[in-house]
Amino acid sequence: MLELKTPYLLFIGHATDPLSIKMAKSAADWSPEKCLGEVRSPGCTVSTGLPAMTIAEGIAAGAKSLVLGFANSGGHLDDQWLPMIHEAIEAGLDIISGLHDRLNAYEELVAAAQRKNVRLLDIRHPTKRLKTGKGYRRDGKRLLTVGTDCSVGKMYTSLSLTREMQQRGMSVTFRATGQSGILVAGEGIAVDCVVADFIAGAIEELAPANAAEHWDIIEGQGSLFHPAFAGVSLGLLHGAQADALVVCHALGRTSMRAIDNRPLPSLAETIALNEQMARVTNPNAKVVGIAVNTSAVSDEEAKTYCRKVESEFGLPCVDPIRHGVASIVDKLEGF
Amino acid sequence: MLELKTPYLLFIGHATDPLSIKMAKSAADWSPEKCLGEVRSPGCTVSTGLPAMTIAEGIAAGAKSLVLGFANSGGHLDDQWLPMIHEAIEAGLDIISGLHDRLNAYEELVAAAQRKNVRLLDIRHPTKRLKTGKGYRRDGKRLLTVGTDCSVGKMYTSLSLTREMQQRGMSVTFRATGQSGILVAGEGIAVDCVVADFIAGAIEELAPANAAEHWDIIEGQGSLFHPAFAGVSLGLLHGAQADALVVCHALGRTSMRAIDNRPLPSLAETIALNEQMARVTNPNAKVVGIAVNTSAVSDEEAKTYCRKVESEFGLPCVDPIRHGVASIVDKLEGF
Repeated sequence: MLELKTPYLLFIGHATDPLSIKMAKSAADWSPEKCLGEVRSPGCTVSTGLPAMTIAEGIAAGAKSLVLGFANSGGHLDDQWLPMIHEAIEAGLDIISGLHDRLNAYEELVAAAQRKNVRLLDIRHPTKRLKTGKGYRRDGKRLLTVGTDCSVGKMYTSLSLTREMQQRGMSVTFRATGQSGILVAGEGIAVDCVVADFIAGAIEELAPANAAEHWDIIEGQGSLFHPAFAGVSLGLLHGAQADALVVCHALGRTSMRAIDNRPLPSLAETIALNEQMARVTNPNAKVVGIAVNTSAVSDEEAKTYCRKVESEFGLPCVDPIRHGVASIVDKLEGF
Repeated sequence: MLELKTPYLLFIGHATDPLSIKMAKSAADWSPEKCLGEVRSPGCTVSTGLPAMTIAEGIAAGAKSLVLGFANSGGHLDDQWLPMIHEAIEAGLDIISGLHDRLNAYEELVAAAQRKNVRLLDIRHPTKRLKTGKGYRRDGKRLLTVGTDCSVGKMYTSLSLTREMQQRGMSVTFRATGQSGILVAGEGIAVDCVVADFIAGAIEELAPANAAEHWDIIEGQGSLFHPAFAGVSLGLLHGAQADALVVCHALGRTSMRAIDNRPLPSLAETIALNEQMARVTNPNAKVVGIAVNTSAVSDEEAKTYCRKVESEFGLPCVDPIRHGVASIVDKLEGF
């Protein structure tokens, strides 16, 4: 366990893309009791919905950690944020980062943190030695969220499913595979940051054999169709050895995340390819539901779209935020 | 460029599995002029074919580097080899390692190397900051070797193709993606050791846009069907944006590498899935030949097998060592 100190101050820089502050927004949405407010820089046009405050105001309100709650493609640490990070260290805050670049690689940050007795927590980086995957059948049930693209709601869907299953008294654990999920869950493995040889092995370790009736709800990453990240998605799919898959999609997305002019795959292609590839480690893997982020359209259009998808595929289709995930969890009862 | 000092002494430990000394054997086979001999430990039952010698004998013969030329699954450095490595450092040799575990993570090795002014070269670890992939179409032609399994001859096939193309005066570059290939080529990126998010991006950097008539021959890794390593293979396939694929296979292999009781996919499945997945970044990708390691059978059986495969798939099928790869390169001329 990471023992992250709360409450958090969520630093979102000068972000203008709502998807780039996923980590901050996830914590605000799923662990609001742990979050005090957001710290913004000039030019920032998006928000977590929490009150804006300065570092000094956050300290006065009792903040214990500054979370670098934004990301660029590549996860690099921009030098322009160093003064802000130093200010937080000097004020006595732990720094929590989900970037690829390590806070601990900056000697002057390490020196300052030691002097002030605070911690630099690079939560994206695995802390233990991993093994290669084996693909041997293991006990327990596992569900993996997969996507037509990156950033289409796989974590939100996974957390929604977990919450609904908990409310029904089912035996269930959320397994975080990204920095946002780790911030919410307090533990996990950021699979996009492990050494490539260990992708599947990391997931075998994250979601190990369990009691026959237990469900691990494994947060998916990327998409088998994404030209940058499909390798992560495939290793995750094989390591998860999932019995059930839930396909996630963002309505109205016109090009794949961070790539120009690349249309998303259809739901039919996404279902077919994920089932095909999943069967390398679980011959019974099947898609049991579809979760759509419909925030781009009206309530009425969302309902119409989901009904159309349900009749096309014979599977429950919901927006987890608007409609809940009860109809998908119904399919998991007595699985 | 790495500037590896030659000649090498190839340390193969107490290996008993010929596939586990792939790195030493590759150097002996493809760069014999750079290799003096092999250093063996008691219990070792395999060989590179080079004369056995002690470290002291190697030094006397002029060795400049000790290559850790074996690997276990996971690429860990066994503490039992530390005394041998210390002996080599004390004798003034550079140490070249292709393991995941870094020589440079061992403080006492680093201290000894500094004292003796020799280098600890972890050639599997990327030395520069990588970017995520984009999948945008780029100029030049690229060929990728893919496999039914790990360790089926993808590097030997790639080097054979490169040599044959060079002999024909074609414009061609071998692109190494594993520690053995890097040892032979003197440069490259060990793709199984990059952070998972950067698999495809690493290959886009390794095999960048080039002149229209130029071929990059990219060494493949793993297999889309391998439960541990398929993520690496898929990221490599997408990053390579290959025009031509050559499927590699080892005749007589009964179970996938390092996995119990997992049959290999058929050639037909391997061709179909690789073409399907490659088309995410190159809609024209196609398999142009099949390369088979037939060392488990007689010359006659090898010939019969290859003829059968040729008539089944309408593609050239050869054992690169026994038959050469001319019939595959014929397909690349005027591509």
